Amino acid sequence: MSVITLGTMAFDAIETPFGKVDKIVGGSGTYVAYAASHFVTPIQQISIVGYDFPQEEMDAMKARGVELDGVEIVPDKKSFFWSGKYHIDMNTRDTLITDLNVLADFNPVVPDSYQGAEYLMLGNLMPKLQMSVIDQLKQRPKLIVMDTMNFWMDIAMDDLKAVLKKVDVLLVNDGEARQLSGELSLVKAARTIMKMGPKFLIIKKGEHGALLFHEDHVFFAPALPLEEVFDPTGAGDTFAGGFIGHLAKTNDISFDNMKTAIIIGSAMASFCVEKFGSERLKEITKADIDARLAEFVQLVNFDIDLV
Amino acid sequence: MSVITLGTMAFDAIETPFGKVDKIVGGSGTYVAYAASHFVTPIQQISIVGYDFPQEEMDAMKARGVELDGVEIVPDKKSFFWSGKYHIDMNTRDTLITDLNVLADFNPVVPDSYQGAEYLMLGNLMPKLQMSVIDQLKQRPKLIVMDTMNFWMDIAMDDLKAVLKKVDVLLVNDGEARQLSGELSLVKAARTIMKMGPKFLIIKKGEHGALLFHEDHVFFAPALPLEEVFDPTGAGDTFAGGFIGHLAKTNDISFDNMKTAIIIGSAMASFCVEKFGSERLKEITKADIDARLAEFVQLVNFDIDLV
Repeated sequence: MSVITLGTMAFDAIETPFGKVDKIVGGSGTYVAYAASHFVTPIQQISIVGYDFPQEEMDAMKARGVELDGVEIVPDKKSFFWSGKYHIDMNTRDTLITDLNVLADFNPVVPDSYQGAEYLMLGNLMPKLQMSVIDQLKQRPKLIVMDTMNFWMDIAMDDLKAVLKKVDVLLVNDGEARQLSGELSLVKAARTIMKMGPKFLIIKKGEHGALLFHEDHVFFAPALPLEEVFDPTGAGDTFAGGFIGHLAKTNDISFDNMKTAIIIGSAMASFCVEKFGSERLKEITKADIDARLAEFVQLVNFDIDLV
Repeated sequence: MSVITLGTMAFDAIETPFGKVDKIVGGSGTYVAYAASHFVTPIQQISIVGYDFPQEEMDAMKARGVELDGVEIVPDKKSFFWSGKYHIDMNTRDTLITDLNVLADFNPVVPDSYQGAEYLMLGNLMPKLQMSVIDQLKQRPKLIVMDTMNFWMDIAMDDLKAVLKKVDVLLVNDGEARQLSGELSLVKAARTIMKMGPKFLIIKKGEHGALLFHEDHVFFAPALPLEEVFDPTGAGDTFAGGFIGHLAKTNDISFDNMKTAIIIGSAMASFCVEKFGSERLKEITKADIDARLAEFVQLVNFDIDLV
């Protein structure tokens, strides 16, 4: 199965209580691609970069089965740059700099070679761009997953709601679910959001795990309790990549398989936060992932004798 | 198996975003006893009340197998009174009034008829009182579970640490685990606290579930996502009551059985918050509890094929 991913490929400067990097490759598309390519190929990337984006990074992606035909390279502009600083609890951060650079003129184009993809991952970007990619696809994918954030709810809610009508799965965090629905209770929020379009809703709660809602069903996936969270940047995108990667690999979009996919997404996210950037996602092996999944099984496995 | 419980029997005035009660029966001992008595009897209560504590409440407890020989009734003083107001998110609250009344002179006495109990639940109270109950027991119980709070860490840390050396299981919330250990990471906090005495540590995270630590093992129990949390008062005590009630019923203090006990504690807590006070704990049946446990199984049950 092939997976089209829309997202940024960028540079980040990050400061956490554990260290600091001035310029490191980041972006939602980068994290999604590295995570998903552990499970399925090809990953068909749609993004935009400037003249300064490293060729080695592109080569590393290609070597993993990430197709870059949909990545526009702008020769006279810089890549998107984001800088942020995490608070001591690592759950909150301040954005210090957002230099849009190439992103200001981004008009994603779906290459002919991507047509017919069964899975589409819309990374967190301007809703109009997400819609444009959906509109360009001649055949609707079997599954469309959408990530978004509070920023778009503040400035482009109508566009966002239009995209919501077209997608199957929405990924948001708990604060965003509350903002989007106007409900404080996540159970009520989920019910409201599922009426806006998506049949499945994943609410990410960071170190507190994630909830999957579908009709009247709810599933909870914990986050692995970690000794140290080194850098949370990209954890949500990595989660999304692991999630859609598993679904595409198994080509099964049932609720039961989505539960498994969420555990796999959580496991991938738990690697992502262990080092700055996408470094851990590049070095881990299938054996590492399997060992981590076994930890998740141990973490939640219990016996109840319901007589 | 018999369970000795030490805790308050009191009146509460509670305001939540969903309503308000001026005077309702509460107290840690009350919640523990109502929850635990669903699983095992006798519950051997140690507490103190004033002349104003309702006889009907005592009768209702007795009818459930709660022995009150260890409950001192002070004829010329009022019962302990606590008043609090919850914030809109229900995770935080302000204490408005704390009238110690009878609690100011509480010297718990273990009746002869309680000697030989296999299980001891030390509810959240002054550490010196918890220690006094341990010291009065001629035979050490098979399992001692201790609840405490940040207040005692602020004003009686040495006493608290002395009790910690004597107990098997400690129950605290995440903020308290961080305060007690001086560690931000809960994994590191758990390791530090287990060196202080308890072989098992339960970290309660409210709506985000609970973690059980033992040696190098960790288990996570989610909280059931609820449409409405009506009143969180007593949820932690109810959790503790369900936990020790199941352990005493099965007389099995293995790590595996503690996992089950935590799920049962979470299920009981999910009932507690549905109405003000202990009302729900009195009206639910075994069928209600089993149905709720089945929801927990559904909530976390997933398949991973580790080949």
